[in-house]
Amino acid sequence: MFIKTPHGIIKTPVFMPVGTAATVKSLSPTDLIDLGAQIILANNYHLFLHPGSETIKQFGGIHSFMRWPKPILTDSGGFQVQSLSKDIIAMCKIDDDGVTFRSHLDGGTLHRFTPEIATASQMDIGADIIMAFDDSVSENADRKRTEIAVKRTHSWLLRCIKVWKKSISHKPHAVSLFGIIQGGTFPDLLRESAKFVVSQNLPGVAIGGAVIGRDPKQTAETISVVRDLLPKDKPLYAMGVGVRPSDLVSVIKAGADMFDCVAPTRLARTGLLYHSESKNERIDISQSKFKLDKQVLDLDCDCHTCRQGFSRGYLHHLYKSKELLYYRLASIHNLRTMIRTVETISDPVKNPGT
Amino acid sequence: MFIKTPHGIIKTPVFMPVGTAATVKSLSPTDLIDLGAQIILANNYHLFLHPGSETIKQFGGIHSFMRWPKPILTDSGGFQVQSLSKDIIAMCKIDDDGVTFRSHLDGGTLHRFTPEIATASQMDIGADIIMAFDDSVSENADRKRTEIAVKRTHSWLLRCIKVWKKSISHKPHAVSLFGIIQGGTFPDLLRESAKFVVSQNLPGVAIGGAVIGRDPKQTAETISVVRDLLPKDKPLYAMGVGVRPSDLVSVIKAGADMFDCVAPTRLARTGLLYHSESKNERIDISQSKFKLDKQVLDLDCDCHTCRQGFSRGYLHHLYKSKELLYYRLASIHNLRTMIRTVETISDPVKNPGT
Repeated sequence: MFIKTPHGIIKTPVFMPVGTAATVKSLSPTDLIDLGAQIILANNYHLFLHPGSETIKQFGGIHSFMRWPKPILTDSGGFQVQSLSKDIIAMCKIDDDGVTFRSHLDGGTLHRFTPEIATASQMDIGADIIMAFDDSVSENADRKRTEIAVKRTHSWLLRCIKVWKKSISHKPHAVSLFGIIQGGTFPDLLRESAKFVVSQNLPGVAIGGAVIGRDPKQTAETISVVRDLLPKDKPLYAMGVGVRPSDLVSVIKAGADMFDCVAPTRLARTGLLYHSESKNERIDISQSKFKLDKQVLDLDCDCHTCRQGFSRGYLHHLYKSKELLYYRLASIHNLRTMIRTVETISDPVKNPGT
Repeated sequence: MFIKTPHGIIKTPVFMPVGTAATVKSLSPTDLIDLGAQIILANNYHLFLHPGSETIKQFGGIHSFMRWPKPILTDSGGFQVQSLSKDIIAMCKIDDDGVTFRSHLDGGTLHRFTPEIATASQMDIGADIIMAFDDSVSENADRKRTEIAVKRTHSWLLRCIKVWKKSISHKPHAVSLFGIIQGGTFPDLLRESAKFVVSQNLPGVAIGGAVIGRDPKQTAETISVVRDLLPKDKPLYAMGVGVRPSDLVSVIKAGADMFDCVAPTRLARTGLLYHSESKNERIDISQSKFKLDKQVLDLDCDCHTCRQGFSRGYLHHLYKSKELLYYRLASIHNLRTMIRTVETISDPVKNPGT
């Protein structure tokens, strides 16, 4: 499938590197192009707080601000307002109109997101694809809480659509809005939500909540519950998928076209590097057994780090010395491994069955 | 002047970026080639402690270890054993045979450098140019302390030469050893030291100690004291020079051919970016006045950061968010500014007088 955006066409399936604060941690736009990124993510919650959506607008939008010429998708912040403010300062009050939260940056200032504010903020940021503001439920949400979340997510979607339609009214090839299916672990709620989101006839559909992304089997099962209800000609975005390369194989098989995860860069920064020959799909470069290892990180990899011949021993040295170069070389490798995994699956020569 | 090394020819005058622990902080070899580095420095003290000179030898030497194909100079550690161990744990015992010091890394383990150990360690590391192990005096050293330092530096130089000559005995285009002039603020001691070092007929001569590098006027004056004693056909290396771009103009005028300084990358990491139009030669990107500044960092600069059009506002955002990309973009800019300054001085088209 091909997705048209104001900043070019995306070929699916596609793994989207996460650049939360208008930067994929440690990487430049040139690095991202070199490793094959077609589109990156940024986060409305983080950018709203710092440097501010209005600031980014003044720079002519996020593409100009961060010097990234290709498509950008922003997450609405529905997930972050709940997870980050809960994690850090136990302050997040949800009502039917929106969410009041404290900033995780200063822990003090109060902010409020409504569907209208979250959508307008994403329009200010200037993403190519924006996400509806949803009530994203946690993994252990019971039926009652999930029912409320689904109902709220639907009513908020209508309000997001209103703001979005108004902003793009005179622009035929403008920003796309994707609706988000919620429903937790309850098949009937998931199907009810899928039907509602699909009925809005938006450019794309996403499936979210904590049930997506953590466990590949659960993710695939959740998608399978709603798969027959989804349009064949529109992309399905599975939010937060991609802890291991094999997760991508599994989620593509389940029917998803787009997916993102912070894991590749976050794991890289803690010393965990994807490796094709490792049982666990990754090695821990901090281990002393790598100190004298002269082998290139991964001979099966075509990333800059492996192409330039950086050895496991050198990466071990950089990691142990907390040298800044480590974080870049490691992030390049993990992201390229994810993107190459997707490229291999969708290559008809390498995979004649696809 | 052209300096031949096992890893290629260096054209002087040359500014040498500092890559203490076998990495110029935050930059890859590709970045360094892009910004015009001809040679980089590494530090024998740091590498001896971590990952160990023997470890680097097992990787086939530092070039292979860090994937840098061009020349490398190692500082012997004479300066670091005194400054770092004093700064951190007040443990550095110098005698006429060598120096006993505690590691600044763990603050515990005792180590000893003698001229023999420091030279053998640099040979293990595999640099193209190695430095003699010297007794480097502090800025406030009195005449008595400086006399001892000069005497010791000379006797240590003979011991370094012995180890070096033995290692290169069958290699015609092998590693160069540079002797170091000491003498602090005392003209007669400086001249005595210059005469002695020059009499050893080594491939190059350096001038060191805390009087070099801190203040450009003092550096130029110190060099002028010994200039007439130095060979015209061999490079003079002024150790630790280059806090500001104008320092390089001054030190080249004084007669130096090679110089290095941690300042460009260290200042970059604290938000201080060289700027051609600033009175102080640099701007402080952390200042809130840059938040909405859409201008490219420095329009007169041809570094990757400026070529890619990163604005002061975006760099301000990255710096304030402690984003890893900031450190790389900032370091590239400051190092390129230094190297471009030197290139401009030595370009006969831009500087017909040279």
